[in-house]
Amino acid sequence: MTGPFSSRVKDIEISGIRKIFEAAGPGSINLGLGQPDFDTPQHIKDAAIAAIQAGKTGYTGNNGIPELRAALSDKLKNENHVTCSPDRIIVTAGASEALHIVMQALVNEGDLVLCADPGFVSYAALATIAGGRPVGVPLDKTFHIDIEKAKSLMDGARLFILNSPANPTGAVESKESVKALVEYAEDAGVTIVSDEVYEHFIYGKEHWSAARFGDNVVTINAASKTYAMTGWRLGYLAAPEDIVGQCIKVHQYCQACATSISQYAALAAYTGDQSPVKKMRDEYKARRDLICAGLAKIGFSFPVPEGAFYAFVPMKPALVTRIIESGVILTPGSAFGTNAPDYARISYAASRDDLKRALDRIEKATGE
Amino acid sequence: MTGPFSSRVKDIEISGIRKIFEAAGPGSINLGLGQPDFDTPQHIKDAAIAAIQAGKTGYTGNNGIPELRAALSDKLKNENHVTCSPDRIIVTAGASEALHIVMQALVNEGDLVLCADPGFVSYAALATIAGGRPVGVPLDKTFHIDIEKAKSLMDGARLFILNSPANPTGAVESKESVKALVEYAEDAGVTIVSDEVYEHFIYGKEHWSAARFGDNVVTINAASKTYAMTGWRLGYLAAPEDIVGQCIKVHQYCQACATSISQYAALAAYTGDQSPVKKMRDEYKARRDLICAGLAKIGFSFPVPEGAFYAFVPMKPALVTRIIESGVILTPGSAFGTNAPDYARISYAASRDDLKRALDRIEKATGE
Repeated sequence: MTGPFSSRVKDIEISGIRKIFEAAGPGSINLGLGQPDFDTPQHIKDAAIAAIQAGKTGYTGNNGIPELRAALSDKLKNENHVTCSPDRIIVTAGASEALHIVMQALVNEGDLVLCADPGFVSYAALATIAGGRPVGVPLDKTFHIDIEKAKSLMDGARLFILNSPANPTGAVESKESVKALVEYAEDAGVTIVSDEVYEHFIYGKEHWSAARFGDNVVTINAASKTYAMTGWRLGYLAAPEDIVGQCIKVHQYCQACATSISQYAALAAYTGDQSPVKKMRDEYKARRDLICAGLAKIGFSFPVPEGAFYAFVPMKPALVTRIIESGVILTPGSAFGTNAPDYARISYAASRDDLKRALDRIEKATGE
Repeated sequence: MTGPFSSRVKDIEISGIRKIFEAAGPGSINLGLGQPDFDTPQHIKDAAIAAIQAGKTGYTGNNGIPELRAALSDKLKNENHVTCSPDRIIVTAGASEALHIVMQALVNEGDLVLCADPGFVSYAALATIAGGRPVGVPLDKTFHIDIEKAKSLMDGARLFILNSPANPTGAVESKESVKALVEYAEDAGVTIVSDEVYEHFIYGKEHWSAARFGDNVVTINAASKTYAMTGWRLGYLAAPEDIVGQCIKVHQYCQACATSISQYAALAAYTGDQSPVKKMRDEYKARRDLICAGLAKIGFSFPVPEGAFYAFVPMKPALVTRIIESGVILTPGSAFGTNAPDYARISYAASRDDLKRALDRIEKATGE
């Protein structure tokens, strides 16, 4: 007998996203993955290679190399209008680990963790692993947070996870919504955890960092999406001093430090040429327009995604299955909570040619 | 107000090791760090660079690239005489994350986690973060596990953390001890977590993997020490199927995957030229002999370390402070539990010149 197992972990299901990772077979067009199909820009690779050759292959300080934390502090000031000194930043193994250590450090047994439903699959899972109880916040018909409902759920909660631009919906919250949520949360003693990993992929709207509007905010971000660096596992959190003081304890023991080479790569990413980011944004926008027009032509009706690289499209599970069988991998809405079983997430982080071929297959499967 | 914080995390102290990481100032000889002072071998660096250039910079499967898991399965068979199929291996961000996800997956609130005291600082901390209660297992006068006392503590416990060769003592457990512990644990329903990261640095004795003697064993290991790759954050766990099934859920959400580039580097490490490992072992042995002879000459009396790269030496905290002030950083015994306040850990993962200079300073500080 090798059990019993942790009751916090036991009941978590292997996510649909993981199943789709594993289901990715030859011949299928994979619109299920949440990662850029671009390669990491060469100047970032060159910095990593230089770090390897220079023998920067040992542990760094737990919270990350000082030059990277300084660069991130500058980035927060210049891009996000958020003041955060380098000592209030922890460099992590992607946004995933940042979310994890925040949950571990801030959530006590039974604490309520609010997150959008539909929302990114990890939030509820990580809250559960930390002993918390995830509570779904409903969205309005355009996939934006229903602010009044969110407020009504906030009393007695511990965390509110904000994700704008949002996975899986592509919704981008307005200044008014972000400000209202942060200010209400501050009064209610709820810490906002703001996952901003898609901040650079917004098409026509503006990004508003939650930390602009209050102090009880943990900002989470990563190089992964912005610089096409998912495999490097490099993210960070920026938080008030006392929260950092708790998070670093979890980070120190569960990770020691983020991969040293990835840290030097990220330093080049954040301080170097930003034109690859604009190029990727322009390409994602073109793809968004392509996939949205194509889906509309087939007959799907859905809010046009404002950011990230996903369309969230109403379709019954039977159709999702037919489309996957026809050779287009997408993610069923059930992977993102309980409120969207009759939807699917279509990632447009794929080439335009693949998107066109996928649209043909989707059209055929829809007509069957 | 940004709190309250997790009671599991709140009471954990920032470890002495972290303080020493941060205290490492110019001019001091750092014998406090638990990492090789060697650079990663060139053929491993070359493989990483090739992976970067080939664009292997995206997410891998959560459990790691198949070729690395296959190589680790072979390694376990050939080096450790342990049969473990690749699907029972999870590639992690160092042994740290492997230990963390095992604790998270296997420990329920209040579960007892047995670990040597003095022992590696992370075990008790990670058990506490998972909601468990760490219980110190006393060592005998030669720093080996007191098998009868260990057995007497096992009934009702959830995990027994075995660490041979041991940090901070350098003790290597005999075949008889490992076998007795594993068999007793199996009968008592206690899962053995065997942290074998120092397995290749043993001087005159033999390494016995716990998984040779029973099925309820999680083997944890890493490229970090063996191949001088601490900064790459690359380790793994090998476990029974049902334990892997729980651990992967935590890993998937808290990490997604180990750094892709580090995985390709590790593949080269485990499948390539092993002569750098022998060279490092020979050098560590020479340093061990140097530091032990030097400390004995000054008047210290302690068991000669059989493995790892630490000497664990009796000295009062006041002397530890004097030595640190004299310019030699070492780790006070209080960092490793409650049973060894009058000891210090001296790492000999430093050049022989540094060790000689450190011995001079220690001699002077001791004579004051």
